[in-house]
Amino acid sequence: MTRLTTSAAGVFVIAATPFLPDGALDYDSLDRMTEFYLEAGATGLTILGIMGEAPKLTAAESQAVVARVLARVAGRVPVVVGVSSPGFAAMTELSAAAMDAGAAGVMIAPPGSLRTDDQIVAYYRNAAEFIGDTPFVLQDFPLVTGVQISVPVIARIVADLPTCVCLKHEDWPGLDKISALRAPGRLDRRISILCGNGGVFLPEEMARGADGAMTGFAYPEMMVDVTRLMAAGDPDRAQDLFDAYLPLARFEQQPGLGLAVRKHVMMRRGIIAHDTQRRPGAALSAASRAEVDRLMARLARRLAELG
Amino acid sequence: MTRLTTSAAGVFVIAATPFLPDGALDYDSLDRMTEFYLEAGATGLTILGIMGEAPKLTAAESQAVVARVLARVAGRVPVVVGVSSPGFAAMTELSAAAMDAGAAGVMIAPPGSLRTDDQIVAYYRNAAEFIGDTPFVLQDFPLVTGVQISVPVIARIVADLPTCVCLKHEDWPGLDKISALRAPGRLDRRISILCGNGGVFLPEEMARGADGAMTGFAYPEMMVDVTRLMAAGDPDRAQDLFDAYLPLARFEQQPGLGLAVRKHVMMRRGIIAHDTQRRPGAALSAASRAEVDRLMARLARRLAELG
Amino acid sequence: MTRLTTSAAGVFVIAATPFLPDGALDYDSLDRMTEFYLEAGATGLTILGIMGEAPKLTAAESQAVVARVLARVAGRVPVVVGVSSPGFAAMTELSAAAMDAGAAGVMIAPPGSLRTDDQIVAYYRNAAEFIGDTPFVLQDFPLVTGVQISVPVIARIVADLPTCVCLKHEDWPGLDKISALRAPGRLDRRISILCGNGGVFLPEEMARGADGAMTGFAYPEMMVDVTRLMAAGDPDRAQDLFDAYLPLARFEQQPGLGLAVRKHVMMRRGIIAHDTQRRPGAALSAASRAEVDRLMARLARRLAELG
Amino acid sequence: MTRLTTSAAGVFVIAATPFLPDGALDYDSLDRMTEFYLEAGATGLTILGIMGEAPKLTAAESQAVVARVLARVAGRVPVVVGVSSPGFAAMTELSAAAMDAGAAGVMIAPPGSLRTDDQIVAYYRNAAEFIGDTPFVLQDFPLVTGVQISVPVIARIVADLPTCVCLKHEDWPGLDKISALRAPGRLDRRISILCGNGGVFLPEEMARGADGAMTGFAYPEMMVDVTRLMAAGDPDRAQDLFDAYLPLARFEQQPGLGLAVRKHVMMRRGIIAHDTQRRPGAALSAASRAEVDRLMARLARRLAELG
Repeated sequence: MTRLTTSAAGVFVIAATPFLPDGALDYDSLDRMTEFYLEAGATGLTILGIMGEAPKLTAAESQAVVARVLARVAGRVPVVVGVSSPGFAAMTELSAAAMDAGAAGVMIAPPGSLRTDDQIVAYYRNAAEFIGDTPFVLQDFPLVTGVQISVPVIARIVADLPTCVCLKHEDWPGLDKISALRAPGRLDRRISILCGNGGVFLPEEMARGADGAMTGFAYPEMMVDVTRLMAAGDPDRAQDLFDAYLPLARFEQQPGLGLAVRKHVMMRRGIIAHDTQRRPGAALSAASRAEVDRLMARLARRLAELG
Repeated sequence: MTRLTTSAAGVFVIAATPFLPDGALDYDSLDRMTEFYLEAGATGLTILGIMGEAPKLTAAESQAVVARVLARVAGRVPVVVGVSSPGFAAMTELSAAAMDAGAAGVMIAPPGSLRTDDQIVAYYRNAAEFIGDTPFVLQDFPLVTGVQISVPVIARIVADLPTCVCLKHEDWPGLDKISALRAPGRLDRRISILCGNGGVFLPEEMARGADGAMTGFAYPEMMVDVTRLMAAGDPDRAQDLFDAYLPLARFEQQPGLGLAVRKHVMMRRGIIAHDTQRRPGAALSAASRAEVDRLMARLARRLAELG
Repeated sequence: MTRLTTSAAGVFVIAATPFLPDGALDYDSLDRMTEFYLEAGATGLTILGIMGEAPKLTAAESQAVVARVLARVAGRVPVVVGVSSPGFAAMTELSAAAMDAGAAGVMIAPPGSLRTDDQIVAYYRNAAEFIGDTPFVLQDFPLVTGVQISVPVIARIVADLPTCVCLKHEDWPGLDKISALRAPGRLDRRISILCGNGGVFLPEEMARGADGAMTGFAYPEMMVDVTRLMAAGDPDRAQDLFDAYLPLARFEQQPGLGLAVRKHVMMRRGIIAHDTQRRPGAALSAASRAEVDRLMARLARRLAELG
Repeated sequence: MTRLTTSAAGVFVIAATPFLPDGALDYDSLDRMTEFYLEAGATGLTILGIMGEAPKLTAAESQAVVARVLARVAGRVPVVVGVSSPGFAAMTELSAAAMDAGAAGVMIAPPGSLRTDDQIVAYYRNAAEFIGDTPFVLQDFPLVTGVQISVPVIARIVADLPTCVCLKHEDWPGLDKISALRAPGRLDRRISILCGNGGVFLPEEMARGADGAMTGFAYPEMMVDVTRLMAAGDPDRAQDLFDAYLPLARFEQQPGLGLAVRKHVMMRRGIIAHDTQRRPGAALSAASRAEVDRLMARLARRLAELG
């Protein structure tokens, strides 16, 4: 049972949650998707995140998804479980179940009601106390949560809570924030920084000091290659590759619509059987599907050009 | 198993959820509080609302509270269960459990992400489809939810969804909204309007056409008497009584702090054993407790004056 | 030309801005209202606040209102001018014009885009630098601005900016905040705290350490008497008087609608000629007018009872 | 004095407002920038928009900028002036001054307080009444304004207000919205749709039925070429060109930071003399400047490859 540490690096793919057309969980697709992520080079998985439609599952379903993925992964990579909840009782329950089943850690986003620095710090202190010694990822995603977590607040959380091992960095703009967090002495210990936002700033994020990505772009191999090439000191080749995927990544990063794009691409790639989302969740319009298909075809051509 | 109808009237007390000092559910206090509400003249109860700390319970705890209250009430008055959830799966699960246990209906607040008229209507259409033929209360509480539900939107929901039987009216200002909803032809059928906001506009709300209150002021007998006197055509006596309680009601209506005030008063009145809230939930400061105690003493004197 | 200092106390009435029925400024009513406030015992005036419909005036009109009020006051009490603006250039321009015309200081509310502690502090640093040595009132009104200013943030502003001499306290709930700000050592120097929220917590606010009120209730004599009686050590008499006005004060404190109530009452009292608001500004419905008139009549009776 | 009509098409560049290092308006750069935009093929200009730092100007400065640009353009293309204001008096004043000086129309963004459909429609009715027969652009930019304007609301505004001639489309995601607005019968008359968001969806927007762009990307020639190629029926060539600029366009589209990127690029290109922003306005960090410079160099290489 490996635990998530401050050394987390590479690509932790944010997993989608596949459904059958009637809205039931699609366990076969879940298995296939898990294998796909690992074969693509994921160094970890993050399940039941916002993009995993976690709030649309019952408590029992959440635990079932956790169990299924952990059984399939079978210890090959660490698995992080999103446990953000309106209350600490539900968060504690899911966190305990996940860790018992073999998860490496949990991820916690702040509730939208938080505003001041002290409120945010107090929230994470409470959460950390409830989940005990479980390592956790601090999710910083203002566009969706509405909560702005400043560098001083992150520094206070890191100083106060030893179980905070990783920042899921998803602020936008956020590059200078990475630099600030990596400036000597800014944090009293180094934590892992894995970046979100669909990977659309990944080359710059790596150059600023991020350790990798934690996001769900439907071509995780791009993120694997870019993080590898950046680590290998080949930023131009990394950027060439990145640029090829960018027209599609940009399209997938549309708020709300992004998950529909992602599921459509994954279905087209044979990774999941259906692009079903539970309600409320917009299906892709015919026009959007055509746009995505066109971008996929252009991507294939561009990758061939790059050789 | 009476079902909630558009004739709901009087005082549906929003029940607090009592906890022991260690944060466990306090079933003895829950029983005592239930009896107190009924003895005070409540014509219904609403449990697991925002003021009931519902988001702080696990799914299992929510069902346990529902079962306990319904067992105690034993059919004497209809019980409404708050089932607002981040997703429809959890909402459906709790709604079904509540109705199976004998609830009269459920209450649904809109998620904070809704903005446009169409988004709000679509949300309630989805919710109503998920919960089936269960009667529901539409909770209109912009100060807390951030969602503004206009009169045309309410009219569309009432027209589209026959299971919408009641509006928990908690907009602020909201008096003209009641008049608009009661204007001939504005809605295509009459629904019940029960008012919130701690009762601090109750005389005016009744005069505008509300059917009663659905809120949690720690002296439900005030609301029972005011609704009775208003219905009996004695607005001056109603207002005299109301005015006596207003200094305390104003104090209890402070956002966030209000529940701490309410639990403190209920503890002082011997209704619940502890004023514990689950975290995050501010305890009342010593100064605030003294202020409340002073207002309670002044209230007793003023009631004696009124005879 | 007295400048506002940290000793500001008593009642600084937030002045309405009277308009003629066609929307033009009503200078006669402005003069009459100014005299009324002073005769009622105001120790200061605050003009061009949110309740003064300041954003509905052109730059030239704002300066005209400032000049007219200052000419009428003629140095009898200090006048604070609201200079909140979307940008610092307009703020600087109005602030300079106001101080040149004899204002005692300015008031600045934070723009709604601010979120983190550092953002708020940086905003006030910028503002203070732009307005130079002008004393300013920090307006803390989260319900309207959407910005939550914590005690540590106020402490940083007070420590950094010597020109911050007064807090317009309008947080809700806010009583413990006053106590926190008055706790020994919490601020590195004492500033004036004048409270808003229509005066509906004035007795408790004074008991917690506030220096008075800065708000616009249409019966400023209540606020004058309550602050005087609290200062004289007679909280029960203060509260009796307060309680008499509370039903009306509660009604006037309805967000958005409050100004219409206030102008209606002031018109009924003969203080201003018209209750006109510039658009967008809701007129009072006939039903609301009747409710206000009834509350005014009840107030008169209750005051007679109290002797 | 051409007036803006529903036939507006092509590229209306959102103009930056250049400042000298001390924060004063830089009229020489303003002239040079105006010429640059026209030489790049702009079919119109939009000044004093959000990206033009309009709220940071005094009323007098705003009118000075309008006069200067209009004098320079000298009728070669239509000029739209942003007149969004906290109040209608200031909006009316600036609108009248702009039209007197020869502007073709004005642009109005909704204030952030609007929520319901009726509130939005009422706001635009009021605004249209205040500005009289001036043609206006409806600015739909939820990410910044916080106001979500649905298709039915746009349809009502278009039906009610004949002076609404153009939609500045900046919703995100927004492609299906364009399709909905272009669906036969959805609007009762066709208006111009010009798209924002820095141009990062321009090929798809044109394919969906937009008439062009109204945004401020620092390489307006890209937008000119893409709109031309799309109109000429060469979407692949349009997309090839677009893709070359996308890494930089993505970088420029970072909220808040975008204007700093834009001014830096324009300074590097010799269009404006300084990249100064008035406060509050973040300067570009050294790391960000290096990232932009690298992207500019890569763009030059990629354009050379494309021939």
